[in-house]
Amino acid sequence: MKFLKKAVLPLGFKASGLHCGIKRSAKPDLALFFSLFPAKAACLFTSNKIQAAPLKVCRAHLKKSHFFKAIIANSGNANCFTGNAGVMDAKAMARFTAEVLNLNEQEVLVASTGIIGKRMDISKIKKAMLKLAGGLSSCGIDKAKKAIMTTDIFSKEFTASFKVGSSKVTISGVAKGAGMICPNMATMLAFLFTDANISQTAMSSALKSATEDSFNSITVDGCMSTNDTVFLLANSAAKNKLISGGRELQLFSKGLKVVCLELAKMMVRDGEGATKFIRIEVSKARTKEQARKAALSIANSNLFKTAVYGENPNFGRILAAIGSSGVDIDEKRIKVNLGPLQGKDINVKVNLNLGKESSVVYTSDLTPEYIKINAEYN
Amino acid sequence: MKFLKKAVLPLGFKASGLHCGIKRSAKPDLALFFSLFPAKAACLFTSNKIQAAPLKVCRAHLKKSHFFKAIIANSGNANCFTGNAGVMDAKAMARFTAEVLNLNEQEVLVASTGIIGKRMDISKIKKAMLKLAGGLSSCGIDKAKKAIMTTDIFSKEFTASFKVGSSKVTISGVAKGAGMICPNMATMLAFLFTDANISQTAMSSALKSATEDSFNSITVDGCMSTNDTVFLLANSAAKNKLISGGRELQLFSKGLKVVCLELAKMMVRDGEGATKFIRIEVSKARTKEQARKAALSIANSNLFKTAVYGENPNFGRILAAIGSSGVDIDEKRIKVNLGPLQGKDINVKVNLNLGKESSVVYTSDLTPEYIKINAEYN
Repeated sequence: MKFLKKAVLPLGFKASGLHCGIKRSAKPDLALFFSLFPAKAACLFTSNKIQAAPLKVCRAHLKKSHFFKAIIANSGNANCFTGNAGVMDAKAMARFTAEVLNLNEQEVLVASTGIIGKRMDISKIKKAMLKLAGGLSSCGIDKAKKAIMTTDIFSKEFTASFKVGSSKVTISGVAKGAGMICPNMATMLAFLFTDANISQTAMSSALKSATEDSFNSITVDGCMSTNDTVFLLANSAAKNKLISGGRELQLFSKGLKVVCLELAKMMVRDGEGATKFIRIEVSKARTKEQARKAALSIANSNLFKTAVYGENPNFGRILAAIGSSGVDIDEKRIKVNLGPLQGKDINVKVNLNLGKESSVVYTSDLTPEYIKINAEYN
Repeated sequence: MKFLKKAVLPLGFKASGLHCGIKRSAKPDLALFFSLFPAKAACLFTSNKIQAAPLKVCRAHLKKSHFFKAIIANSGNANCFTGNAGVMDAKAMARFTAEVLNLNEQEVLVASTGIIGKRMDISKIKKAMLKLAGGLSSCGIDKAKKAIMTTDIFSKEFTASFKVGSSKVTISGVAKGAGMICPNMATMLAFLFTDANISQTAMSSALKSATEDSFNSITVDGCMSTNDTVFLLANSAAKNKLISGGRELQLFSKGLKVVCLELAKMMVRDGEGATKFIRIEVSKARTKEQARKAALSIANSNLFKTAVYGENPNFGRILAAIGSSGVDIDEKRIKVNLGPLQGKDINVKVNLNLGKESSVVYTSDLTPEYIKINAEYN
């Protein structure tokens, strides 16, 4: 299996991106992803009970259609808590895309990210559609990946490729962070594309499992977004023998996991104001769920995160966080290993010495820059 | 009922405080509270599964004894995650106190606050005991209230007094915050004293109820401490007719609630780095528990708290926090009222429009100063 720290669109995919005016700055804010061939889709959405309009439209389209050809995404406005008007706006985004690409509206998926609670000026998107569609190309991903960014400093992209029989299969993804990052889902959008020929069931279960250990294992600020979505499109252009189980599915799942994990880690490295990348491993817990819960409790502790920022080895804050997580512990058995806090990469290992299960969670430190960014963002 | 923003020890109580050397600074770090008469005690402890040594000793003493005469408390060291040695140290604190005051060891309660995971130099406490006991007086509360402070900027004190029959009853308390503040319990110590003659059952239930709406309704940073304790001593010195129910208990409960709430609010106002005092009211929830859960989710949202610091009216972050709390909502019915963010006192009102229950939670904003304090604290 080969990996590349870049997005390389698989066979049959094209992308495009530009500035249409939703962002007040001149930065790109509108992205289009397109598959020449009808693609199966698997999508995962935030578990926040407030769900943005595009998520509602995606759910509706996923119910009605089995194949998809495009995803339209904007940054600068989340189109969330915008009522029925917002849903109409998200539908309009799908309709504009369908019109310009000569598709059925239900073959289009929609994503938005940005400020919550404000109507979008949909006319700006309408005006930009022709130019956006005209820009579709294999290398257009470099513009698309920037058009989905909000407070992100760098773009997140990763590619895995491997052989299924004699066919080369590629999985490639782009994603955005960088604040309101917390599991189920993290606050993020991820767009994953593969030319694999894979069954709907297989791709859905592979995505669920890959997301659990990647996008759902990171936290920047413990705040769960209203817009998080992971999209996976598979258009069969690689013409491999259908993947539906066995070794081939294991291979596909492995590739997908690596892509998701690398994208997730990039989100943490680019966490708002982050100066440190923190890996927290809780081992020998009674259950996997408890290991994860304890790790997340540490990862979301402001006191722990500021201590890491200050390179202040205050391991008592780790203990307080574990104790408050509600998981089974025996104070006398806990071992905490907090490596040196100098440098960018920090490792925390907690051994609960109670069972056999472990979990890894990634987070960033809490810094004055995080506060500056979020005190001013509007 | 009369209220005073000062601690005034009820009849028969004395206190004392001094610097014994646990804190590296010259600030007071050892407090002693004493009742001339045997006092009933009600105590509430943190629900953190990691519990500091003094809490273990208090629990043991509360099981063995029905009356108490002293509380010894230090700041600068939490005596937490210090193993059996730490428990021996906490017991030694009780023993030193019993020796100097000629009490039974089990009549003494113990509290500690400060850094977690370090042994205390108990010899410093031993050496100071004679001077500490010698300083006991009615006005010694002014020294004791300072000796329990850690990162607190100001001391927290409040007094309520009222008549039961022809007897004047006083409830007075001192408390400390100011970081690691989150419900069940907040990270805090509170020492409450009353000269009321009240039954054990009545005082325990009154304390539980008062704590729910005060110390358990505040959050500074969402971090739950290992040392939180609320002590209530009642020594019957007011010689009122025994309070065990009815109008008298209502009166006592009301007084206790006001004292607890005022102390809790002071903790929030003195929250680490706080520049704003935020009151969050969630109304018309399906259940009281859901109202509280939604309010706490907002209160613990870093994004919301930084927005308030930046006087940035980003109400989308309130919605995201409500949605992620898991409580029942109907997006179309939610009304959010976010008052102006200038000034020190901020009001957030959320109407879920689903039921009849409401809850109020208090918190502070998240500021660069919070990070500075906690990046350096050790």
